[in-house]
Amino acid sequence: MTAVSPQVQERPSHTKLDSVQALVAADMRLVNHLIVARLDSPVHLIPEVAGHLVSAGGKRVRPMLTLLAAQLCGYRGERHVMLAAAVEFIHTATLLHDDVVDDSNLRRGLATANTIWGNKPSVLVGDFLFSRAFQLMVEDGSLAVLAVLSNASAVIAEGEVAQLMTANDTRTTEATYLEVITAKTATLFAAAAQIGALVADRPPAEAEALRSYGENIGIAFQLVDDILDYSAREVVLGKSQGDDFRDGKITLPVVFAFARGGAEERRFWRRTLEQGEQHEGDLARAIELMERHCALADSLARGAEYAEAARRALAPFPPSPAKDALLDLVDFCIERAY
Amino acid sequence: MTAVSPQVQERPSHTKLDSVQALVAADMRLVNHLIVARLDSPVHLIPEVAGHLVSAGGKRVRPMLTLLAAQLCGYRGERHVMLAAAVEFIHTATLLHDDVVDDSNLRRGLATANTIWGNKPSVLVGDFLFSRAFQLMVEDGSLAVLAVLSNASAVIAEGEVAQLMTANDTRTTEATYLEVITAKTATLFAAAAQIGALVADRPPAEAEALRSYGENIGIAFQLVDDILDYSAREVVLGKSQGDDFRDGKITLPVVFAFARGGAEERRFWRRTLEQGEQHEGDLARAIELMERHCALADSLARGAEYAEAARRALAPFPPSPAKDALLDLVDFCIERAY
Repeated sequence: MTAVSPQVQERPSHTKLDSVQALVAADMRLVNHLIVARLDSPVHLIPEVAGHLVSAGGKRVRPMLTLLAAQLCGYRGERHVMLAAAVEFIHTATLLHDDVVDDSNLRRGLATANTIWGNKPSVLVGDFLFSRAFQLMVEDGSLAVLAVLSNASAVIAEGEVAQLMTANDTRTTEATYLEVITAKTATLFAAAAQIGALVADRPPAEAEALRSYGENIGIAFQLVDDILDYSAREVVLGKSQGDDFRDGKITLPVVFAFARGGAEERRFWRRTLEQGEQHEGDLARAIELMERHCALADSLARGAEYAEAARRALAPFPPSPAKDALLDLVDFCIERAY
Repeated sequence: MTAVSPQVQERPSHTKLDSVQALVAADMRLVNHLIVARLDSPVHLIPEVAGHLVSAGGKRVRPMLTLLAAQLCGYRGERHVMLAAAVEFIHTATLLHDDVVDDSNLRRGLATANTIWGNKPSVLVGDFLFSRAFQLMVEDGSLAVLAVLSNASAVIAEGEVAQLMTANDTRTTEATYLEVITAKTATLFAAAAQIGALVADRPPAEAEALRSYGENIGIAFQLVDDILDYSAREVVLGKSQGDDFRDGKITLPVVFAFARGGAEERRFWRRTLEQGEQHEGDLARAIELMERHCALADSLARGAEYAEAARRALAPFPPSPAKDALLDLVDFCIERAY
């Protein structure tokens, strides 16, 4: 098996996402309305900056997890809408800050907020969205939900700082990489799914099953994201190919390629990622080395393991449309790599 | 009356702060322990960056307000310690982000975190502290407190963005300036004092009186801070003189000097603050123009009005050592301008 190619099988995963989206469409419309309403501020730069990112779309995977988890747990009220919006606000806040930290220029196919307005509004509007998320949770009034999402927020920030520390360090191991992506990405997926059970007042075992589902799908999601950075065409992903390479981020494909490469290859990785000395053709060379060592394919295989763990976590739940959708979402996460 | 001079009457205000600090010394030791304990993280860069700022001291005015307000309200438990720490965490988070937004080099007499570690850790560690603040509040378990502080956090971010929008705009009015400092500074003072009443379960009128006290002392505090930027010696304040001038911030002394200046003077303000074209001697010229138009003295007079409003807000409370301390704190805020 050679490296992942972005050209094949694009449709099936999109079709799967479509059917998942259809199941939560009504709820998601309410979430979107609430998001727009709560972005409002007398300080007009705030809805302008935040709205730029929010209206660019994105797949809304995290609030979708909250909505589907609540549905899976038989929840019948309206609180899950407010909590899904809070989850998306936290996510959007971290995106705004990430783009500042990474100096990114492109996100969801659009120029990033920091590119358009500079770093300052991005930092401050991120803070605003973060506060809005907590206002929504306080309005909802569940201390259990507040605990899950305030803990998640702290762990996400820890993961982002840990990622900063492993950047440019080719000695990063697979274990460290997994710790970082679990913290910075999977924790919010886990929290988003878990609060779906909390809002439905389900027993701790179900909340834990959904937390585990969210964590595992979150790891798979990030693994695939990191693979796509070396394989996706810009137009498909809506972000620039090679961003991680240029930032010197040590993702799993790099960990594998570095571990399996000879002395000359390791010098290449150290020059490009540690010393940040990159020339024309280096990204192509990186991809070629990854393909030679099956680094992308093996990273995807690792992603498939976490996807399988996500599926297993749902075993205790009886069949239902929501369960099917959560399983489809796992397939989508993996298949978008193709 | 000419401009404020930093040379005179330094001692009385320090003595006042000393006696206030003595009254809350035992509680503040607990707050400091808790802060250090909750700064901890397996990601060692976090306590390093946050600890740099926290251990630099600062006057801890905001947590002091929570402790004194709780004491004023006859509170006898230990929850106020956790909430005072949460307030200080929110404040520290905003300082880290402020220094990134303002490109500041000096804070509390030390190099800023962004100068030492760069902007990235400052943004992310700020996010971490913000999350920690909410974790502490959730642990405390009061939704009323969570509401006050999540609202305050949103308003602070709005105020920071509004400040960004008025920067470099010499048409900024006194009313707009007051709106901005009320949001970005006074809101946290107000919340810090208000939650002292909430934790003691006092009636809404007392919580409102303390909120009003906090808001007014907060406005006075910021007004004096903005005056000191044109008058204090670096060594006294622990921050660089002229920072606001170099950043093109339109503070009240500028608003007054601009309004009272002739065409030639307005050209000077527009060149230095709007176009950001500054030369050797411009800061001295700015201070000279402010003195000529009594801009610093009149700003201080405005600060004294808010100080008086803060004192009046405490009228409903019977005499007590805590009340004396809160009144002394008002004096300290104003007197440090001298």
